[in-house]
Amino acid sequence: MSGTVDLNADLGEGFGVWRLGDDEALLGVVTSANVACGFHAGDPTTMRRVCAGAARAGVAVGAQVSYRDLAGFGRRFIDVAPAELADDVLYQLAALDGIARAEGTRVRYVKPHGALYNATGTHTEQARAVVDAVVAHDPALPVLGLPGSALLRTAEAAGLRPVAEGFADRGYTPDGGLVRRREPGALVHEPAEVAQRAVRMAVEGTVLAVDGSVVPAAVESICVHGDTPGAVELARAVRTALAGAGVALGPFAG
Amino acid sequence: MSGTVDLNADLGEGFGVWRLGDDEALLGVVTSANVACGFHAGDPTTMRRVCAGAARAGVAVGAQVSYRDLAGFGRRFIDVAPAELADDVLYQLAALDGIARAEGTRVRYVKPHGALYNATGTHTEQARAVVDAVVAHDPALPVLGLPGSALLRTAEAAGLRPVAEGFADRGYTPDGGLVRRREPGALVHEPAEVAQRAVRMAVEGTVLAVDGSVVPAAVESICVHGDTPGAVELARAVRTALAGAGVALGPFAG
Amino acid sequence: MSGTVDLNADLGEGFGVWRLGDDEALLGVVTSANVACGFHAGDPTTMRRVCAGAARAGVAVGAQVSYRDLAGFGRRFIDVAPAELADDVLYQLAALDGIARAEGTRVRYVKPHGALYNATGTHTEQARAVVDAVVAHDPALPVLGLPGSALLRTAEAAGLRPVAEGFADRGYTPDGGLVRRREPGALVHEPAEVAQRAVRMAVEGTVLAVDGSVVPAAVESICVHGDTPGAVELARAVRTALAGAGVALGPFAG
Amino acid sequence: MSGTVDLNADLGEGFGVWRLGDDEALLGVVTSANVACGFHAGDPTTMRRVCAGAARAGVAVGAQVSYRDLAGFGRRFIDVAPAELADDVLYQLAALDGIARAEGTRVRYVKPHGALYNATGTHTEQARAVVDAVVAHDPALPVLGLPGSALLRTAEAAGLRPVAEGFADRGYTPDGGLVRRREPGALVHEPAEVAQRAVRMAVEGTVLAVDGSVVPAAVESICVHGDTPGAVELARAVRTALAGAGVALGPFAG
Repeated sequence: MSGTVDLNADLGEGFGVWRLGDDEALLGVVTSANVACGFHAGDPTTMRRVCAGAARAGVAVGAQVSYRDLAGFGRRFIDVAPAELADDVLYQLAALDGIARAEGTRVRYVKPHGALYNATGTHTEQARAVVDAVVAHDPALPVLGLPGSALLRTAEAAGLRPVAEGFADRGYTPDGGLVRRREPGALVHEPAEVAQRAVRMAVEGTVLAVDGSVVPAAVESICVHGDTPGAVELARAVRTALAGAGVALGPFAG
Repeated sequence: MSGTVDLNADLGEGFGVWRLGDDEALLGVVTSANVACGFHAGDPTTMRRVCAGAARAGVAVGAQVSYRDLAGFGRRFIDVAPAELADDVLYQLAALDGIARAEGTRVRYVKPHGALYNATGTHTEQARAVVDAVVAHDPALPVLGLPGSALLRTAEAAGLRPVAEGFADRGYTPDGGLVRRREPGALVHEPAEVAQRAVRMAVEGTVLAVDGSVVPAAVESICVHGDTPGAVELARAVRTALAGAGVALGPFAG
Repeated sequence: MSGTVDLNADLGEGFGVWRLGDDEALLGVVTSANVACGFHAGDPTTMRRVCAGAARAGVAVGAQVSYRDLAGFGRRFIDVAPAELADDVLYQLAALDGIARAEGTRVRYVKPHGALYNATGTHTEQARAVVDAVVAHDPALPVLGLPGSALLRTAEAAGLRPVAEGFADRGYTPDGGLVRRREPGALVHEPAEVAQRAVRMAVEGTVLAVDGSVVPAAVESICVHGDTPGAVELARAVRTALAGAGVALGPFAG
Repeated sequence: MSGTVDLNADLGEGFGVWRLGDDEALLGVVTSANVACGFHAGDPTTMRRVCAGAARAGVAVGAQVSYRDLAGFGRRFIDVAPAELADDVLYQLAALDGIARAEGTRVRYVKPHGALYNATGTHTEQARAVVDAVVAHDPALPVLGLPGSALLRTAEAAGLRPVAEGFADRGYTPDGGLVRRREPGALVHEPAEVAQRAVRMAVEGTVLAVDGSVVPAAVESICVHGDTPGAVELARAVRTALAGAGVALGPFAG
């Protein structure tokens, strides 16, 4: 593995009066911010505040696009027609990009959120819809996803740069997928363990699955969630452990 | 008056399964399309379809920004804080611009919709919010509004190009304002009368108010509504009458 | 077959400024109105107007409950957790019932809309969620659905009255299911054919599938859609044909 | 003053994944819960959870009806037509009542939220719309509001029971109104001061305005907000202080 890795987290996941996670603190830890674009979270004012903070902190802004699902926080699969999904993604991507530019930065990558992230792992039509939207907006934008996912394969086939990420705080199945949120082992809570998993990903390119098997995880970016309790502590523990292991941190997207 | 005028109408005012107005037909008549951006109407697929049609027809795309009000079609005044309104407008403007660019065109002007249009006639803080959003996105974009409105004054003061428009199918008060929609005389239905009013605006720069008085209406663009019954016939009647009076039609925004 | 059948249609499918279908005309033809409850269509004012009209016309009001999906008109499957779906259905059912009571009538049955209707044909957990909501609100309310569906089986097991319906204007698969909307043969457009299919259902209890096979369709109610072009003509043709065949029309729910 | 007063707070103000305030803790302190009904906050699952908790705790459930404004948390005045507002209120009221009944309780009073609360203090048409909805649903339901407000006057004139409330944690203007949220002195943060103000209201029927003048505040209920930092501590301090002053606590609505 190279000596540099990106650290990404979901930010801007509030809506109106509601907050979720500590955006300000996370901006001091991560190198890439997946910013909600209004369909599962993220009203325009929240989006703008996060973009301004990311610009100040030198954190790369990514568009975390989602199904239209405020009530379900984008965690429900929706069988939306691919052509409409592509338009929904383009809308979100363009909106965030415009807001980011107004704050002196811009969208540098795209990452689907929640159920859309899961679906595009295997649902080739929905993966293609996301890719189509990115191509339509800016073919220079990388797409962040799970190694081996339909999303990254489709992105690569369309000429986009696929960027593999790992989840330091999520359980893995033996085939390299994520344990579903409703199932046991879905989340790793212990900061030391999360940090150790991150270092293993960055240094060895592997992760331990829930059954103890070693799974390949050659990743350019490591995701820590922003909405779990203790998210900031987790992210700091990961950052400190990576530094201690001699791994440099920096955004994958210029 | 110059020998050229712009003809604008509201397009893309459907949402999901719902349609309002005949976008395809209007694109064959108008020179500028005020496209709904998702807050009062206009899902992303509708927005994209209208942008594609406008690109094909050589019609200029404008962002018709609104309060967040699907249930009220943006016709209800909302006392939203100006800073939040600016962010809402920027979001809509950027989203439409991105979609328009994906279809080979771009947003060329901004026009508030419904209650926001009315409010920004006199509400200087909300007018300023709209202007701030345009400046943040692209200071080269003109703003379309009523002559003498707070919106156009604020736009001009901020260095934006103010473009005055007239309403051929709306009643005017003696002081040059529009008769409110709930009041008698708000709408002019007779195509011949609407056409005559448009010609008067383009050639003489005046309009007849509901009390019969002559009101100045030196305008660069004439608006015909797309959601009234017979909207297409009205627009065609206006176009034909303007041509008959020797007035050329063309978009005000390049 | 008995000499009486119910004729139901979807009503109140507008939202705010948007209309879909001719509610007033349909209220003069059908005996049961499936009224949208706000999640896929149906703002409170539309709901109230339809309930008032149904009360005047002696048409039974049914709650047409849906996924939360205005943008997709409830036609997209959503993988919502069953417990949350039950609460969503209860909310819609109670809201419509309250509005109906304010207009001198009340909700007399429940029918899922669109993708939820399709899903509850086989998705036992979502079917159970709908049934749970009905039981929680009023166990005396019948549930309308496809013969053999998970919905009707689950309703019956829970002590609710299952009411089988047929679709005179929808294509049938040989196993008695409906042809999906995106596939050929999904809709029958010819009024005479729709009317003939309705009579066959009411008199013989069968329907012709897309492959020409005869499929059992012993139904208490026949659905004609309100949002198809010519919906009112279709409904009138069905009503006239049923009368001509000696079949009386009346609501299944008292 | 009588020896009994009600203590009310806003509950169920989350939406989907988002939470606001500590509903569980507040249910152990207050005697009446103003439950959000889905228009400014409160998805059906949240509503049901709060109703179940209120039923268990013997806390009276009130419908906290609002403008349709999730993005603004109902804190923005919306100039909605009164007839539509009445329908919106009826929809919310009926939905919550149905959910409450499913949990073994029912709606026992109505209180507008946020900007609608403020507006109905003086906007007689909107106050009348709220009252119309209550009359349509159940004329036995009391309406909670500010003493002297248009809401309470209109309620009384319509035969509803008006219930005056005071705000122990809000600043008062010398004429008995509330200091607007954006202005200094809007909120009282110190628990001891809040508690003292509550006792003064319950025992003397007065409150100190921001200018130090004594204002009449003869109230049947005292409101403490659930969404302010330290809301639970505030509410407990108020309850303890009232008990210490010999004031009994109990719901005003049976």
